[in-house]
Amino acid sequence: MKAAFLARCRGIVGADQVLTDALDMAPFLTDWRGRFTGSALAVVRPATPEQVALVVRACAQWRVPLVPQGGKTGLVLGGVPDQSGRAIVLSLARMNRVRSLDPVNRTITLDAGCILEDVQEAAAAHGCLFPLSLAAEGSCTIGGNLSTNAGGTAVLRYGNTRDLCLGLEVVTPQGELWNGLRALRKDNTGYDLRDLFIGAEGTLGVITGAVLKLHPQPKASITALVALATPRHALALLTLMQDSCGASLTGFELMSDFCLRLVATHFPALPQPFVTRHAQYVLLELSSSESERHAVGLLERAIETALESDIADDALVATSIAQSRSLWQLREHISMAQAAAGKNIKHDVSLPISRIADFIARTDALLAQAYPGCRLVCFGHVGDGNLHYNVAPPEHTGDDDFLACQPGVNRIVHDSVHGFGGSISAEHGIGALKRDELVRYKSEVELNMMRAIKTALDPLGIMNPGKIL
Amino acid sequence: MKAAFLARCRGIVGADQVLTDALDMAPFLTDWRGRFTGSALAVVRPATPEQVALVVRACAQWRVPLVPQGGKTGLVLGGVPDQSGRAIVLSLARMNRVRSLDPVNRTITLDAGCILEDVQEAAAAHGCLFPLSLAAEGSCTIGGNLSTNAGGTAVLRYGNTRDLCLGLEVVTPQGELWNGLRALRKDNTGYDLRDLFIGAEGTLGVITGAVLKLHPQPKASITALVALATPRHALALLTLMQDSCGASLTGFELMSDFCLRLVATHFPALPQPFVTRHAQYVLLELSSSESERHAVGLLERAIETALESDIADDALVATSIAQSRSLWQLREHISMAQAAAGKNIKHDVSLPISRIADFIARTDALLAQAYPGCRLVCFGHVGDGNLHYNVAPPEHTGDDDFLACQPGVNRIVHDSVHGFGGSISAEHGIGALKRDELVRYKSEVELNMMRAIKTALDPLGIMNPGKIL
Repeated sequence: MKAAFLARCRGIVGADQVLTDALDMAPFLTDWRGRFTGSALAVVRPATPEQVALVVRACAQWRVPLVPQGGKTGLVLGGVPDQSGRAIVLSLARMNRVRSLDPVNRTITLDAGCILEDVQEAAAAHGCLFPLSLAAEGSCTIGGNLSTNAGGTAVLRYGNTRDLCLGLEVVTPQGELWNGLRALRKDNTGYDLRDLFIGAEGTLGVITGAVLKLHPQPKASITALVALATPRHALALLTLMQDSCGASLTGFELMSDFCLRLVATHFPALPQPFVTRHAQYVLLELSSSESERHAVGLLERAIETALESDIADDALVATSIAQSRSLWQLREHISMAQAAAGKNIKHDVSLPISRIADFIARTDALLAQAYPGCRLVCFGHVGDGNLHYNVAPPEHTGDDDFLACQPGVNRIVHDSVHGFGGSISAEHGIGALKRDELVRYKSEVELNMMRAIKTALDPLGIMNPGKIL
Repeated sequence: MKAAFLARCRGIVGADQVLTDALDMAPFLTDWRGRFTGSALAVVRPATPEQVALVVRACAQWRVPLVPQGGKTGLVLGGVPDQSGRAIVLSLARMNRVRSLDPVNRTITLDAGCILEDVQEAAAAHGCLFPLSLAAEGSCTIGGNLSTNAGGTAVLRYGNTRDLCLGLEVVTPQGELWNGLRALRKDNTGYDLRDLFIGAEGTLGVITGAVLKLHPQPKASITALVALATPRHALALLTLMQDSCGASLTGFELMSDFCLRLVATHFPALPQPFVTRHAQYVLLELSSSESERHAVGLLERAIETALESDIADDALVATSIAQSRSLWQLREHISMAQAAAGKNIKHDVSLPISRIADFIARTDALLAQAYPGCRLVCFGHVGDGNLHYNVAPPEHTGDDDFLACQPGVNRIVHDSVHGFGGSISAEHGIGALKRDELVRYKSEVELNMMRAIKTALDPLGIMNPGKIL
């Protein structure tokens, strides 16, 4: 039976695109952070949406589960199979063609296996911006971005991946090809299947293609680092910046002093912007559709107001692209500095923006009480209410000793998030990693609707089983 | 049985909120444009989400269909019952409370029965903008806007209603209350139920409350009317404006000369902006988060470029709020001028923006061939690809004679829209009016997924039957 199924797969995609040898399959079975290794019947690599449809039809016929896989950069074990060895990995990596780009409609139509950075470059070549931007952009694929509704650093201005997608092409769990590749800004003709597949992590169908929105390329971007006393001051700065700069505000990232000290310790070559230390910092980015002079003027006036009204204590506006890069590098090196410092317990949470300061104060206090001396590495996309609220061991405590506390730490952080009306997964998704947490925090009403939809669309339960639900 | 059901409803909402007298029910049974009158068992008017849940539970128990109703301004017969007299109308008009407004998170939480204009005013009172804006804003409710994913004149900058909603409260077809009132910009925890209920026209559940996004209030807005030769020139102007003004471009409406002549004929008191006639006009609006001077400078520079590069033939920038109002009035009076001129066959279509010029040329030609002398009233939100492509009878042809041609005219227009990759309903929805058209243009794969979801969530089929599917 297994042999007949594999023979069918070979007939569809070609013998050399069905990997069954353990060594060949290995790169497809371990997750990005190297924490988990699954097992698979085979890795199947189709070249076209039609081949995907035929492979899924074979899976349905033989009741073989399938795990769609893109760049495999996900952080919640959504794109790797479990250890049963029953499933195939369906890798979309070969499907990486930009099908068309329409500069007047400002849309790009492409295969799901396109790498994000390649899409950014294809847009730029036509004077357009594809604004999705995140750390894994050199490896992650659009299909993965869509399936996890990826966030990143430009959400404040341009939204999540969901907001950048107009249409989808999907292979259903029955192996039918749905052409929903609409390039329309307005379309009210029935249920919003597009947004149902976005963020479904491959559990309802396989996204094989998409129509994405492009934006005009800004003429100039300018960066500043603002020093301030507390997260509450950061919220006041956000309101001030949005009121005075509107859509020109394209980045607003919070970093605590502890984050910057970690970076200074582990990356001493990076310039430290301020001589005096401050408790909190906000990295700001402003973009102008007019000119650099316009962006600088707008930013300087807003910062002046922030300093005069005691919202900000100090500020540095980058005067060159190099200086702007080095300010962003401080932000981008936090994760690596953390890794260099040792293991820690990570959380990707979101909150109503107005409650961030209270959340941090309250949760810091609860953790200090339960785990005296633990250190908080708190930073994130505060303009979107998204915090990476990570907990590092007390000094002189072994990493592994502290990692044993993970369930207790998660409980404190996630209970607190839930109490403040927040989300336990802002931009990473649920996958296999947070499935139990989901059941804990979602209402039975919501879980039952999700289960009903899953059963309605995938009655055989072959699509990425064990993920989300 | 009917008596027992009604007694139960009276027990839930109070005897005076269950209308069964024909005269009392009449205002709830005829659609906005007066084309259709349905029949109902009763009109039930709950005051709270809990009452809605109990009424729906009673409907499920007695198998009584229900038609959720807001301001009843819909254009596709989505909010009125059919003529069987079996259903109740569930009016949410009494649920019109703003529950809270958070100026830092820029969100407003409210009952679904709030009237759009009241929401705009509540936002403005806190220095914020709720950008949804459409002709019926004095009567339509947020629940209706959400259920039809309403569009309007600000979609270009702020998106459709879908893009303005963060969270929902919904009563399921089983009469359970789902609290999905999240006020979060990022939340990736399972299937996107919110967007499934948005645009579902009350066929999957009853939206009882919502969390909506607010935006910073712009400091100034400025309007201009640009005269140009063809729709293709309008597309070139759109690209130019977006490249030079970015998110400051908040309105871009196309009107043909025939539209403005209709307005001039039927509303002679309105000033006509140009002495010379031109074939097409674009009404532009620019908003600035900085100042009026900034908006004017930006607009004037862009228009100068358009004139120099022969994209535009003439332009008028409003120099006062009064003049700006009168330019917008030209646009807003087109529908009334059409009505004054007689009946016509309306279409609410959308297209990839880049294909609008070809669509108009091709469809105009097809109609001229099939219905010699017919006159086209073509205008719309071209910045979103949305055209109101209306067909008026030839001169000296009786309205009713021409209305008999409606099926043939619809076929030509909708086939053409479909051929150009467009949508037969851009912002009005499907309701009962376009149900047959939907089946004609959607693929069987998509219809089957929609039916599977409908059956999974509403197995008794009691939610707004006969709408969409």
